[in-house]
Amino acid sequence: MSKVLTSREENYAQWYNDLVIKADMAENSAVRGCMVIKPYGYAIWEKMQRALDDMFKQTGHVNAYFPIFIPKSFFSKEASHVEGFAKECAVVTHYRLKNSPDGKGIVVDPEAKLEEEYIIRPTSETIIWDTYKNWIQSYRDLPLLINQWANVVRWEMRTRLFLRTAEFLWQEGHTAHATSEEAINETETIINIYADFAEKWMAMPVIKGYKSENERFAGALETIAIEALMQDGKALQAGTSHFLGQNFAKAFDVTFTNQEGKLDYVWATSWGVSTRLMGALIMTHSDDNGLVLPPKLAPIQVVIVPIYKKIEELEKISEKVESILSGLKSAGISVKYDNDDKRKPGWKFAEYELKGVPIRLAIGQRDLENGTVEVARRDTLEKSLIPMETIVQYIVDLLEDIQQNIFNKALNFREQNTTKVDSYEEFKHLLETKGGFFLCHWDGTAETETKIKEDTKATIRCIPLDAPLENGKCMVTGKPSNKRVVFAKAY
Amino acid sequence: MSKVLTSREENYAQWYNDLVIKADMAENSAVRGCMVIKPYGYAIWEKMQRALDDMFKQTGHVNAYFPIFIPKSFFSKEASHVEGFAKECAVVTHYRLKNSPDGKGIVVDPEAKLEEEYIIRPTSETIIWDTYKNWIQSYRDLPLLINQWANVVRWEMRTRLFLRTAEFLWQEGHTAHATSEEAINETETIINIYADFAEKWMAMPVIKGYKSENERFAGALETIAIEALMQDGKALQAGTSHFLGQNFAKAFDVTFTNQEGKLDYVWATSWGVSTRLMGALIMTHSDDNGLVLPPKLAPIQVVIVPIYKKIEELEKISEKVESILSGLKSAGISVKYDNDDKRKPGWKFAEYELKGVPIRLAIGQRDLENGTVEVARRDTLEKSLIPMETIVQYIVDLLEDIQQNIFNKALNFREQNTTKVDSYEEFKHLLETKGGFFLCHWDGTAETETKIKEDTKATIRCIPLDAPLENGKCMVTGKPSNKRVVFAKAY
Repeated sequence: MSKVLTSREENYAQWYNDLVIKADMAENSAVRGCMVIKPYGYAIWEKMQRALDDMFKQTGHVNAYFPIFIPKSFFSKEASHVEGFAKECAVVTHYRLKNSPDGKGIVVDPEAKLEEEYIIRPTSETIIWDTYKNWIQSYRDLPLLINQWANVVRWEMRTRLFLRTAEFLWQEGHTAHATSEEAINETETIINIYADFAEKWMAMPVIKGYKSENERFAGALETIAIEALMQDGKALQAGTSHFLGQNFAKAFDVTFTNQEGKLDYVWATSWGVSTRLMGALIMTHSDDNGLVLPPKLAPIQVVIVPIYKKIEELEKISEKVESILSGLKSAGISVKYDNDDKRKPGWKFAEYELKGVPIRLAIGQRDLENGTVEVARRDTLEKSLIPMETIVQYIVDLLEDIQQNIFNKALNFREQNTTKVDSYEEFKHLLETKGGFFLCHWDGTAETETKIKEDTKATIRCIPLDAPLENGKCMVTGKPSNKRVVFAKAY
Repeated sequence: MSKVLTSREENYAQWYNDLVIKADMAENSAVRGCMVIKPYGYAIWEKMQRALDDMFKQTGHVNAYFPIFIPKSFFSKEASHVEGFAKECAVVTHYRLKNSPDGKGIVVDPEAKLEEEYIIRPTSETIIWDTYKNWIQSYRDLPLLINQWANVVRWEMRTRLFLRTAEFLWQEGHTAHATSEEAINETETIINIYADFAEKWMAMPVIKGYKSENERFAGALETIAIEALMQDGKALQAGTSHFLGQNFAKAFDVTFTNQEGKLDYVWATSWGVSTRLMGALIMTHSDDNGLVLPPKLAPIQVVIVPIYKKIEELEKISEKVESILSGLKSAGISVKYDNDDKRKPGWKFAEYELKGVPIRLAIGQRDLENGTVEVARRDTLEKSLIPMETIVQYIVDLLEDIQQNIFNKALNFREQNTTKVDSYEEFKHLLETKGGFFLCHWDGTAETETKIKEDTKATIRCIPLDAPLENGKCMVTGKPSNKRVVFAKAY
């Protein structure tokens, strides 16, 4: 069978793009930089949303919805925020169209110009903190633990499906607290949720760590991120949790009376993950045959393909399949029986392989005679014959096994591609030849990080929360350092 | 206790607005015409979404996501659609801000002007049909049964929380079919889903019917709506399902090869419900004390309030409550135990009444001695003492009873406020004095409907699907009519 994808070896970026499109995940739209998320891709996103939303709610968070429009002046209120966000964005200047005077089509009505322009939210700190001002008077009103599922727009010049698009979907949490400690705890609670989700649902190992000053969120005192390693040796930031201090409270004048009766500014966090996770998921596990999906996020976990020549054979197979279907469904497994007569088994095999369905069952005449089912697992492409009577339990176990196996495989890949380096020359050499994560000593200054970025395009992905203390010297300046940080080129 | 709401009698519009705000459902934002949906309101919307989404999926629909931006030229392609939608909308003209030359704040960068302006979607037929063009070649690609949950923007001049806002949340289904019959069936499937949802979840009786030409969706051949009657005697259109014929397929050149190998245009439907349903829900059931929520959509179905003087009493009550809590939770009921010591029981009673919690339990010292619980139902405000040992089953049954009771009450109200009228004078008189739905004969012309609207502000809400055939004369022109249609003033 001819391969439908460019191989990773040949052109990784092309492989990724081919895969996203051919597996029916997403495609570019008629609007520059905006994607259409197709039903199969959206079904995975919905599973991600559900799992994350449950985790947020279990930790006391609630959802709400704030306007998509942000008055332009709001962005000027938090000085570093405006630098980071307000520049490349969609600006609404008018609120009406009219028939063109020349009778051809429609034009913007110049009389319907807004007094103050609106920005389509690139992130919602400003409009939300402007709202919180009216919700918070006393410590009794705190904490506010609010999340929003929404679309946001950032006018990116170079876009890639899921990884970087002008419009994307995300969740953004915005919490308000009475004390600095409580806000910092919240930041950590969330990064732990993100890491758990990445590892247990996406089967994607991540490193939790602080961002350096250069890479911090515009307006944050501290940003904690989860960083994952993709198969091409580049890092991908998969989620961030920000401790905002009192910056936004001061910018929007949000004060509260504390337990001692004194007025103080409120402490804030914000945090988010986006449809970028879809890109991370695809790049972490997939291969040259197509998607590989973790069972916990697969829209279809098991597909059953009948192998037959005559329609009477199909009927007998379908009878047997009926009981497997009901067994799997009662075990909570999403299963599809593809008895479409217009397609050959070979076509179906390739299709479900491309779409990353974790387990494929094939049942033919000989299986009926022998009481067996052919089981093919997507992750290893191994096939085996399993007795029909134990198939349901076998699949329940195998799904767990696949979930664990692809996590282990990704973890193993990361370990093999994480290198401790002490010399800048070696760093530069290995960055180009091997790629991956590099654990290096760094003197802690923005200047050194900037120099490294200019020399090599690599940045500090994070300063791991669990980095062991170790005396060393910055690989560039030789100044003292007490722990290694993670460098990599990044998406 | 002083009433926190204006009464319906005194000022119905003010009562509604007070209620939405005081019950923490939503509020106006800093952005003109846009609302903030607060966590309590959003929790109800989430329950609506979940129920509808399940119903869509059970009938074979899948979700996807399309861009928020629509190129201006797309709107000109379907002639009647542009008239209906493209005028009052948010127009994106630029994609960058820059620091103001005078150093004060930020301004729109005139160099970052879009070649073609983008409209924030007021509805997505155009961008979606432009996309479907690439998805549909053959009858094998059909039907496409796709839904989108999204925000949309219509630049409304006069806005009201939930009922009419510039930005609102909704779902919009867009389906593509090989035949006219199949598309018409889909339109009916959906209106039945909407009616089931309205009646079984929202406990809101609705009339299903065709829209007259005047009230039809811009671009549709036929619109079916569900219409509900509010307590002030005005109608509210709660959901619409449109048969679009081949209009959008022709506008966007979407053809397919049918089973006979011939090229034909694709048949379309679209359908939607929005956060407007929240307004309908509130106005259907609530009273001068606050919200009344149907148990199936209530974020908190049962609240338990301890009545105590000393802290030792609270401890004993809490012990008893523990087993009620676990019993209710295992029955799948969402329950809150409000043991907040900073608030008095009276305050809590008023608060949960305002928020429409269907059942309130109160437990005090005497209840512990007698083995009883005080049960107050929100819909009738009745209280009764129930033996502690049977409380869980009692509540399970009572929740069903309340769901049914508020539906019956609303249905009874509608029946009492639906009047058959044959004289235009009587119609005009009763419209002003009584309000409600009017079943009248109409000659079927747009002119007559327009005249009635100009005379009275009433419009044809729908031509009921199940309207019995009955010979009569148009109440205005005296021309023959074979069935009665529903007139009312509407939101």
